[in-house]
Amino acid sequence: MNYNIITPPVIEAITTIVGADAVIVQHDDLEKYSHDETEDLVYYPEVVAKPQTPEEVAALLKLCSKHRIPVTPRGAGTGLSGGALPVKGGLLIAMERFDKVLEIDEQNLQATVEPGVITEEFMNQVAAKGLFYPVDPASKGSCFIGGNVSHGSGGPRVVKYGTIREYVLNLQVVLASGEIIWTGANTLKYASGYNLTQLMIGSEGTLGIVTKIVVKLIPLPTVDALMLASFPSNEIACAAVSAIFRAGIVPSALEFMERRGVEWVMEYDDIAFDLKDGVEAFLLIEVDGNNQDVIFADCEKINAVLENYNCSDVLFADSSAQKEELWRLRRTMAVSIKSNSVYKEEDTVVPRAALPQLIKGIKEVGSKYGFESVCYGHAGDGNLHVNIVKAKMSDSDWTNKLKFGIREIFELTVSLGGTLSGEHGIGLVQKEFMPIKYSDVHFALWKGIKKVFDPNGILNPGKIF
Amino acid sequence: MNYNIITPPVIEAITTIVGADAVIVQHDDLEKYSHDETEDLVYYPEVVAKPQTPEEVAALLKLCSKHRIPVTPRGAGTGLSGGALPVKGGLLIAMERFDKVLEIDEQNLQATVEPGVITEEFMNQVAAKGLFYPVDPASKGSCFIGGNVSHGSGGPRVVKYGTIREYVLNLQVVLASGEIIWTGANTLKYASGYNLTQLMIGSEGTLGIVTKIVVKLIPLPTVDALMLASFPSNEIACAAVSAIFRAGIVPSALEFMERRGVEWVMEYDDIAFDLKDGVEAFLLIEVDGNNQDVIFADCEKINAVLENYNCSDVLFADSSAQKEELWRLRRTMAVSIKSNSVYKEEDTVVPRAALPQLIKGIKEVGSKYGFESVCYGHAGDGNLHVNIVKAKMSDSDWTNKLKFGIREIFELTVSLGGTLSGEHGIGLVQKEFMPIKYSDVHFALWKGIKKVFDPNGILNPGKIF
Repeated sequence: MNYNIITPPVIEAITTIVGADAVIVQHDDLEKYSHDETEDLVYYPEVVAKPQTPEEVAALLKLCSKHRIPVTPRGAGTGLSGGALPVKGGLLIAMERFDKVLEIDEQNLQATVEPGVITEEFMNQVAAKGLFYPVDPASKGSCFIGGNVSHGSGGPRVVKYGTIREYVLNLQVVLASGEIIWTGANTLKYASGYNLTQLMIGSEGTLGIVTKIVVKLIPLPTVDALMLASFPSNEIACAAVSAIFRAGIVPSALEFMERRGVEWVMEYDDIAFDLKDGVEAFLLIEVDGNNQDVIFADCEKINAVLENYNCSDVLFADSSAQKEELWRLRRTMAVSIKSNSVYKEEDTVVPRAALPQLIKGIKEVGSKYGFESVCYGHAGDGNLHVNIVKAKMSDSDWTNKLKFGIREIFELTVSLGGTLSGEHGIGLVQKEFMPIKYSDVHFALWKGIKKVFDPNGILNPGKIF
Repeated sequence: MNYNIITPPVIEAITTIVGADAVIVQHDDLEKYSHDETEDLVYYPEVVAKPQTPEEVAALLKLCSKHRIPVTPRGAGTGLSGGALPVKGGLLIAMERFDKVLEIDEQNLQATVEPGVITEEFMNQVAAKGLFYPVDPASKGSCFIGGNVSHGSGGPRVVKYGTIREYVLNLQVVLASGEIIWTGANTLKYASGYNLTQLMIGSEGTLGIVTKIVVKLIPLPTVDALMLASFPSNEIACAAVSAIFRAGIVPSALEFMERRGVEWVMEYDDIAFDLKDGVEAFLLIEVDGNNQDVIFADCEKINAVLENYNCSDVLFADSSAQKEELWRLRRTMAVSIKSNSVYKEEDTVVPRAALPQLIKGIKEVGSKYGFESVCYGHAGDGNLHVNIVKAKMSDSDWTNKLKFGIREIFELTVSLGGTLSGEHGIGLVQKEFMPIKYSDVHFALWKGIKKVFDPNGILNPGKIF
């Protein structure tokens, strides 16, 4: 695709659409929009526009289609795969002014929300009405729900409640042509036409720009329990994961953490935690529901399973403060590692019983290439986040050889029946690994679909494939 | 599209692919494949082939692509929208020999199943291992799981457990080109590339032919309770539906039945049921879980809600035989009506709080046009099946005027925020109503996607749009 740069008359047209206070052209002011949370990558857009209505987004896309200007939609910029990086320059559309929860419909247990609403704020608003929106990625305090839609986001509660795919009922989308459509209906299900709602979810801003989101809500569980189980090895901890389900329990969260990850958090944060010798891995296990006795019974069943897996210690959180502290341990892990080391985060997902083999293999690849890895993630889903830390690897090896190690990790993942990216998307940095899992036939279908939605290829170019 | 008829050399090629005993060309033998459960519609295919492997399906599709022969895939033929009718003649591919449950993976709580397996048989096989596959349409005893995928099927348990969309992890699909792909991975989630798995679900055999299905399983609930609540009017019964959820209960089934529907079943079947005067509508409510006390508590909460909605009587099923009887009442309704009347079945879905307005409006349309309607369905999902019975309508009115009445029903459905077809698909008979809900932009996107997957338009032509 050949794109054009943004000329002064086009800047004028953009300004006419969104207003002068919603356009950024100065290099210093563009800096904020030149990176997301992906490694240390930096790509400047030529112009940033901050529309506030679907009609403004539509006018911007019409303009950019006409002038063949690349458009990169951006949520909160918390992505880990470079999806929001304007790699071709052009116009960056910042969705931050789409920040309203438009309706919480208590009759139908649905809500209509704009894409620039912070996920946790939305969760809190619905919780205040006794309702539950369970899709809470680790970045819930800063990410936008629109970004969650674009990446098909998950989080720790997927294991019981499903990903955002199972909550989005309907989407208002602006197409590259500037046309505004609703993808489906505000109903719990429908079977009419190809499901455009599901097609948009996870499409990373390459098929259209989402401007309204209708989600399903469920009654808020009233009780929960949280326990942290300690294990002598990664493999044993991972093996216990599958056993918990086989005992008939569906936990509301089942998170794996390596000892090294906990150490990073303790270095970074002021979390007091008694890290015992001989403990190499942890499972953070939550069960929820509406009946305290059932919760206790579930915990006992889980305990019985853990005993068969050499679990040395189970810590029950007995106050909400302690629960908060344990969750902070898990949620702060990515930022702890990022804060003081050069690293890359890879996202792998396998059938959950393959986790022990996956983690063992990852360590072997690390030994071969000389990198450290810190693994943690949503073990209940078979979803392991692999943080690769530069450690003693030379600059030259980090630049030139690491990619072969990452490739081996994904080859292993695929050989175990899994795929790259459980929930972080492909964006910019994972696309070179896509052929490990997908064939030319997949790419041809994807590119064909892309062309149907965006014939000029203006929407988030350079991503996914 | 222009299609070619099947010539003797092509029949020979088909026979070479699947074997002589798996090809049907005699008119009498084709009869079985000329209709499904949709009204009294009959379309004969020219040839039926019964392949047994993905490779045979691939060879058939290559052949038909080359000769531009229309192909209609067929499951069990239980569809209600004419999706399996070979309206352009050509080759009908009967999937009945894909009848194996290939694996029940108790480590990962997954199963791999061929599309020609009867849904209930699959449910029973996994239940024998303490596992649950909850997608059970009314036709579960005869429909194929492949047809369920093609229609995005639901059933009574959607309200708690979701549709088949939430259980299918991965699909093996033969494309029109004859290429065989897996759409995704056998993992609980993934975020890599446009989600082809979700795009295939509900595409009614127009994008490819599914040859293997990997589904998620969950632990089988160990206890349940079933109650039948009686109401003095349809509107009041429907209003109670939304109130049950607002009380914090998520039932495992919440079915609505009109009195007239129960009368039809009692005429058709030998179900002993004490149908009291003044009762006009019923809700069949099931709760399930793993703890009897919780189930009782849920039932009490539901009872308290029902009392606020003029519920005259609540019958608790106190044995599995009685539960079976109550479920039979609901499941037999469609066939009871079909067995001795001329009828059409329409499938509507709205946000659940709009149900009272929907059913009231349907009756008004009936009065205007002179038809009877018998309504029942998955009220918890806002999904109402409307059986239109000819009754005293003249043949001429039935043929010429009824469609305007159906149009009014769908216009009402859409005006209430709903859409046509909650779970029956569009197929042949609903496609004329699609423009009530969807715009030219939707049709252009759908047709574009279709062309990407099936450039020669051989797959199930004449369906959806």
